Amino acid sequence: MVMSKWWGWGQEGVHYSLERRPGFWPFLEQAFGRSLEGRKPPVPLESIELPDSKITVEQRAALENIFSNDALRWDKLERVRHAAGKSYRDLIRVREGKIEASPDVVVYPSKESQIVDLLRAAADLGLAVVPFGGGTSVVGGVEPARGGKGAVVTCDLARMNRLLHIDHESRTADVEAGILGPDLEDKLTAHGLTLGHFPQSFEFSTLGGWVATRSAGQQSIRYGKIEDMVVSLKMATASGILETRAVPASATGPSLKQMLVGSEGLFGVLTRICVRVRPVPEARDYRAFVFPSFIDGQAAVRQLLQKEAFPALVRLSDEEETRTFAALSKAPASTLDELKKRVGLWYLERRGLGLQRSCLMLVGYEGEPRTVQRCAANGAEILRKAGGLDIGHGPVSSWYEERFTMPYLRDRLLDHQILVETLETCVSYSRLLALYGAVSLAIRRAIEADGVRGLVLCHLSHAYTDGASLYFTFMVPQVEGDEMGQWKRIKVAATETILRHGGTLSHHHGVGADHRKWIAEEHGKQGLEALRGLKRFFDPHSILNPGKLL
Amino acid sequence: MVMSKWWGWGQEGVHYSLERRPGFWPFLEQAFGRSLEGRKPPVPLESIELPDSKITVEQRAALENIFSNDALRWDKLERVRHAAGKSYRDLIRVREGKIEASPDVVVYPSKESQIVDLLRAAADLGLAVVPFGGGTSVVGGVEPARGGKGAVVTCDLARMNRLLHIDHESRTADVEAGILGPDLEDKLTAHGLTLGHFPQSFEFSTLGGWVATRSAGQQSIRYGKIEDMVVSLKMATASGILETRAVPASATGPSLKQMLVGSEGLFGVLTRICVRVRPVPEARDYRAFVFPSFIDGQAAVRQLLQKEAFPALVRLSDEEETRTFAALSKAPASTLDELKKRVGLWYLERRGLGLQRSCLMLVGYEGEPRTVQRCAANGAEILRKAGGLDIGHGPVSSWYEERFTMPYLRDRLLDHQILVETLETCVSYSRLLALYGAVSLAIRRAIEADGVRGLVLCHLSHAYTDGASLYFTFMVPQVEGDEMGQWKRIKVAATETILRHGGTLSHHHGVGADHRKWIAEEHGKQGLEALRGLKRFFDPHSILNPGKLL
Repeated sequence: MVMSKWWGWGQEGVHYSLERRPGFWPFLEQAFGRSLEGRKPPVPLESIELPDSKITVEQRAALENIFSNDALRWDKLERVRHAAGKSYRDLIRVREGKIEASPDVVVYPSKESQIVDLLRAAADLGLAVVPFGGGTSVVGGVEPARGGKGAVVTCDLARMNRLLHIDHESRTADVEAGILGPDLEDKLTAHGLTLGHFPQSFEFSTLGGWVATRSAGQQSIRYGKIEDMVVSLKMATASGILETRAVPASATGPSLKQMLVGSEGLFGVLTRICVRVRPVPEARDYRAFVFPSFIDGQAAVRQLLQKEAFPALVRLSDEEETRTFAALSKAPASTLDELKKRVGLWYLERRGLGLQRSCLMLVGYEGEPRTVQRCAANGAEILRKAGGLDIGHGPVSSWYEERFTMPYLRDRLLDHQILVETLETCVSYSRLLALYGAVSLAIRRAIEADGVRGLVLCHLSHAYTDGASLYFTFMVPQVEGDEMGQWKRIKVAATETILRHGGTLSHHHGVGADHRKWIAEEHGKQGLEALRGLKRFFDPHSILNPGKLL
Repeated sequence: MVMSKWWGWGQEGVHYSLERRPGFWPFLEQAFGRSLEGRKPPVPLESIELPDSKITVEQRAALENIFSNDALRWDKLERVRHAAGKSYRDLIRVREGKIEASPDVVVYPSKESQIVDLLRAAADLGLAVVPFGGGTSVVGGVEPARGGKGAVVTCDLARMNRLLHIDHESRTADVEAGILGPDLEDKLTAHGLTLGHFPQSFEFSTLGGWVATRSAGQQSIRYGKIEDMVVSLKMATASGILETRAVPASATGPSLKQMLVGSEGLFGVLTRICVRVRPVPEARDYRAFVFPSFIDGQAAVRQLLQKEAFPALVRLSDEEETRTFAALSKAPASTLDELKKRVGLWYLERRGLGLQRSCLMLVGYEGEPRTVQRCAANGAEILRKAGGLDIGHGPVSSWYEERFTMPYLRDRLLDHQILVETLETCVSYSRLLALYGAVSLAIRRAIEADGVRGLVLCHLSHAYTDGASLYFTFMVPQVEGDEMGQWKRIKVAATETILRHGGTLSHHHGVGADHRKWIAEEHGKQGLEALRGLKRFFDPHSILNPGKLL
């Protein structure tokens, strides 16, 4: 199901319920040092005025030659839906009806040849083309920038969503790029298979989008990042279809595949991807541990990975995120549950691990039952020795149930004029704590420089033998009238600190428009020039996704 | 220790002993249908005449500005040692003293800045530069081609062989590119660590060479191919040093790292590589199984990988390779051993698994003792159910002892005018048997078209969840006077068949000069053009390693 909410996340009518979470609002008010009474809903669609489409008569004729009428959309809702991704920066503008740029037309190709024709027409007639999957970018990756062209066409892959072929023997699947996460998993599950890629955006993002941005799913330790799952891919360009060789591995020069993965729509439009798939895991063991501190917890994660416990997921919240989760937890549904919860919390307090000052870690194993059981037992032993307390399956089941719903909560917070943003990086273990401390502090200082107080949360996830991803979330009352400036100051402070401490600009969100100004620092001058050379090769007329990545 | 044998493999004075292998010569004679009496030793070095170095006075002055006298080598032995790699095609020419091309000078940089200066001087003064690691290429990767320049400089990295830094917490090591395999492992072992990369060329090949060619070690299932071990790398180019960001993973556009890995010396000279390392495995479990057929064996390998038994090594020989190994096995050293061997062979015969018609599989596990034990037991169960008979550790220990010595045997065979060559590919499981059958047949037909009879062996190794590498070896009496034509006809027949059946040109040997004519079929026209665009960017003056890869 495509996202229907043009002004926020997900489906119209779906809300993140705070009714059974009585502790959350008071917790926020205490953290912010003020009461949260204001409410600022998004403007109605009707009040938004879009400039007329800039498509010329000649361009329109060319597009009508390629696409049937129902695949060419000029209406306001379509143009607004494709005007932005789903970052905080996007949503605060869209909610106010400030659409700075919208596509002049949205096209829905059904086959590769239409995309090649579109790119040729765009090159000939001076159009920019923005490839669009689920539109869930949080780094400005689908902004319809014109890049000096007369008009911009957003190319929505929604109709190219077929599972084309499963090779059961080789455990691979050929899939069209526009398929949404749930659709892909439903089709694979019918054959007892899974891709195992579950990013937070899963319900509304697409395979092509994942590949274009080097996405990571929550169980990436087991299944890999998306770039590890791709066997081969096809990309439509103005000069035809490029297809990489579908073999498990090779030694035939630089990896063409890894040059196209992560290209964020700048080189061409990904149309078809061959991915490795696996059997749906017969067994899952997800459980929670509590650690005295983030320092202890991250050392435990490192051991878990380096001692080959083979988890599928590890997620360690720092002290502030742990407190926030505790405040977000649902009130017990019965007196018995209430009692259990109290006993549990009393026990943690007694052990000096009360959730007001400790760190929660979720650890999950998936696969064949005996292996899962052994790995989970082995992992639990490693974590206990590293100072962790096993608190069972309870806390995980609520996380698991709600693992795709956090963006809905953001809509609630935006209603109440709260800035809520996330950013992430990846860094080696030897630099992890320094980066963690410095970035948390940089965000907090940037927040407080505006005279407000906020929450700065962090979790460690997507762990490797040599390092891990750190994911920061911050919430703070908006500085009214300067919402964008406030966001920008925090973002700049955080990003510069990440780079200074040896982190990467992004572990799985991508570069898009938001990280582009630092791309030379990420890759070095020569590295950036090499990437720009590729851009010129693949897109000599500079029609594809202007203003992103390079 | 650098390879000292200019005319063959390894160290002078080291031979592959056939004395205790009485069955091998008769086996070969039977396979070839003729007796092996001729003997053709390599010519003495003195008889080789090299043309004078084409380095001009001006070029020489420039080189003397960069390198001290002892780092600039003009003598015959050095020029001959760097005139070729170690392929059959190389050795038959070198043994006859036919050096078609040799470097005009060999330089030994000690630091990166010298390489940058060399490349700048080469660009200014019209020199070709061939980067050289251990010189073990079997695809013509280090041939000193001039590529239209006046002279060619071979840049030997042997003096850049330091282990610079170990990050124990992140389990990574920064290493100079010219380090030889044993030197690297010795230095890591002193810290209880290993890279785990053991290609057949291990004793004489370098880290930089592995990375430049996308090498695979024998335990690649556990440790990955070399491209999976690289965290970041540094490359010297005429416009300075390029360094990729040292993070475990990122989402910041196409992978620069994977654009430089496998670049075979065409983009720059790799100088320094940060690799993931692991503790030296506390436990190893290597054992052998016998399968009724290659068909049964390959299905068993697939199950082993897809059921997550986590082996480090799997190596399944086909029927003809199994027979050849049996013929190569050492005579028992005592009467008791003799008895044991006879009983073992009798038992196999009785089970219908005699080594004249069955397939040998070696399976190895490495790591923490309990995990190794469990995985080995689990793997053995999978293999037994798939029709395999566990025959214990014996056959593996002889393979393990001799796992780097096969190239020495090749020198013996060349002495006796026997063509011996290997080639390899990688293919998905669903196409594996078709490719195996077609390539074996194509090689055999090409051999027999010359009126001779030969051995065509194959083993499956480097297995993945979606496919595996197939490695073919063939031995056949030389067609005297047309040795090169004979080799070429077989190579062409094999390679065209590999490509037609969905294999890759190479899984771990690289493209070099030998596979270059098929590179457009491997990558497609557009893919090849993209790679050529990168070449033009990194090496605008076309000085680096002419005639290879693209």
